[in-house]
Amino acid sequence: MNEWDHIAWIRSQLAQRPDVVIGVGDDTALVQTDRQLLVTVDMLMEGIHFDLSQCSPVQVGRKAMNVNLSDIAAMAGTPKFAVVAVAIPKGRSPDFGKELFRGLQEAAQAFDVAVVGGDTNRSVSDVAVSVTVFGVPSPKGPLTRSGAKPGDAIFVTGTLGYSLQGKHLDFTPRVREAALLHQRYDLTSMMDLSDGLASDLFHIVEESRCGADLEASAIPIALSAATIVGDVNTPLEHALNDGEDFELLFTATPESARKIETENPLAPFQVPVTRIGTITDGPNVRLHIDGNWTELKPGGYQHQW
Amino acid sequence: MNEWDHIAWIRSQLAQRPDVVIGVGDDTALVQTDRQLLVTVDMLMEGIHFDLSQCSPVQVGRKAMNVNLSDIAAMAGTPKFAVVAVAIPKGRSPDFGKELFRGLQEAAQAFDVAVVGGDTNRSVSDVAVSVTVFGVPSPKGPLTRSGAKPGDAIFVTGTLGYSLQGKHLDFTPRVREAALLHQRYDLTSMMDLSDGLASDLFHIVEESRCGADLEASAIPIALSAATIVGDVNTPLEHALNDGEDFELLFTATPESARKIETENPLAPFQVPVTRIGTITDGPNVRLHIDGNWTELKPGGYQHQW
Repeated sequence: MNEWDHIAWIRSQLAQRPDVVIGVGDDTALVQTDRQLLVTVDMLMEGIHFDLSQCSPVQVGRKAMNVNLSDIAAMAGTPKFAVVAVAIPKGRSPDFGKELFRGLQEAAQAFDVAVVGGDTNRSVSDVAVSVTVFGVPSPKGPLTRSGAKPGDAIFVTGTLGYSLQGKHLDFTPRVREAALLHQRYDLTSMMDLSDGLASDLFHIVEESRCGADLEASAIPIALSAATIVGDVNTPLEHALNDGEDFELLFTATPESARKIETENPLAPFQVPVTRIGTITDGPNVRLHIDGNWTELKPGGYQHQW
Repeated sequence: MNEWDHIAWIRSQLAQRPDVVIGVGDDTALVQTDRQLLVTVDMLMEGIHFDLSQCSPVQVGRKAMNVNLSDIAAMAGTPKFAVVAVAIPKGRSPDFGKELFRGLQEAAQAFDVAVVGGDTNRSVSDVAVSVTVFGVPSPKGPLTRSGAKPGDAIFVTGTLGYSLQGKHLDFTPRVREAALLHQRYDLTSMMDLSDGLASDLFHIVEESRCGADLEASAIPIALSAATIVGDVNTPLEHALNDGEDFELLFTATPESARKIETENPLAPFQVPVTRIGTITDGPNVRLHIDGNWTELKPGGYQHQW
């Protein structure tokens, strides 16, 4: 299948939508949007973000779309459109590109996102998938990383750690959860967890010019999917340091925090929301563990034996 | 330099702009746009689109931005914002990413395009650069590939062929030229030349459901920058088949065609505009050469000896 056939096949897979004025097949797409637009791009590289001996091209496509939807979720926005660029080395079967696209499209459709453009290329060695998603902010505006204030409560959705054992390929981006939380409560900052809680929290702390105290015993730890041979890390270390959780990390005013803890708002999605600490004047990020305070650094947490 | 430092450096390079509400550094960017938005993505892969033994990372960055600006030009739109994703293998020097970004930024600034977001990654083997550009259509609307009518004249800007001898790394996307032509004349279709005239013309012919007659002697052929050792192709074959010209291919009503030929509207840019043929009922694309008509196929033209 040459590029023309491939693009014709992709066009046949895409639904018509009134806000997609021109879709795949011209020099650019033309879409109908709001006056303010959220934009994010994330690229996945073979051997770095996925291992094709461990996963299918459908899973790669799904992950490539979902990591971007997670970024839109992190602003409490609604994703609308996507463009995708893929590069595939010559050795791969002709169906590889179709499978990859199927994964991209599946993840997009789950959130009513229209794929409006793309670029397919050959590569020498690596499979590369770059996705750009744009969306619209909520009527309340976007939730950035810079609004946290001392006294605000720190929350996470879901459970943390062990994502690379499987979840990173099949997670659900927290688009609906973020929208509901932002609509119903006074949140002050939000982001998605991609590098691990112990690193990512520093983004909010730096952008908001504050500090944070975390309660180790409160951090919701994912169950390890399987025993990791030779694992020297504690479950808490996995929860703090493992990347690719793609859960929401957010802060809320003290009053909203009390409501969130009482109302358990994400129960309809079967997603826990857990308060794990409090924003401080800073500048340090501290972890309260076994009755002691230890200072966290962006590099990640290591248990002192 | 780690990713945080790299992102901090990139932020320091970017100018503030009132329409960039949130720029690099949060989960997504937030931009102020019009209600209709042109979007395009193009990815360049090492060893396929550029050879780092033959060019610098600055040139790669510039090309990666310019091929996307050329797509916006092809719709006669005005580019506004870009997001970029790059992957760089570990072996490259720490300055490689900076140089690449410098090229991207240089090309963006030449057309007042704001880089509002990005993603930097490691790769196993290949350098990959994916750029997404969005822009706004002209008040007259976008120029697609589908509006050509029998009797319309076919034009190209600039000269064609031999681009891979150097021009493909240092071309100027025809953003201003396209805007001026679209504003002043009744153009019926437009695209940019990336695969070569003999292939690309079929996009207009297919989308517009028509045919085309080309006059071989009228096709403006670029001067070969250097003798190509063992070259078996004629200059005309280079002009018809070589890729990456990044010139405009467009059609105009007969009345506008006469004006364009008289007025030479791109003279201020020192860019020729040349009429090379006429749209027909079709469905064939024919080349008039040495007094005979020969049918072109999307694969490209080969001289019959």
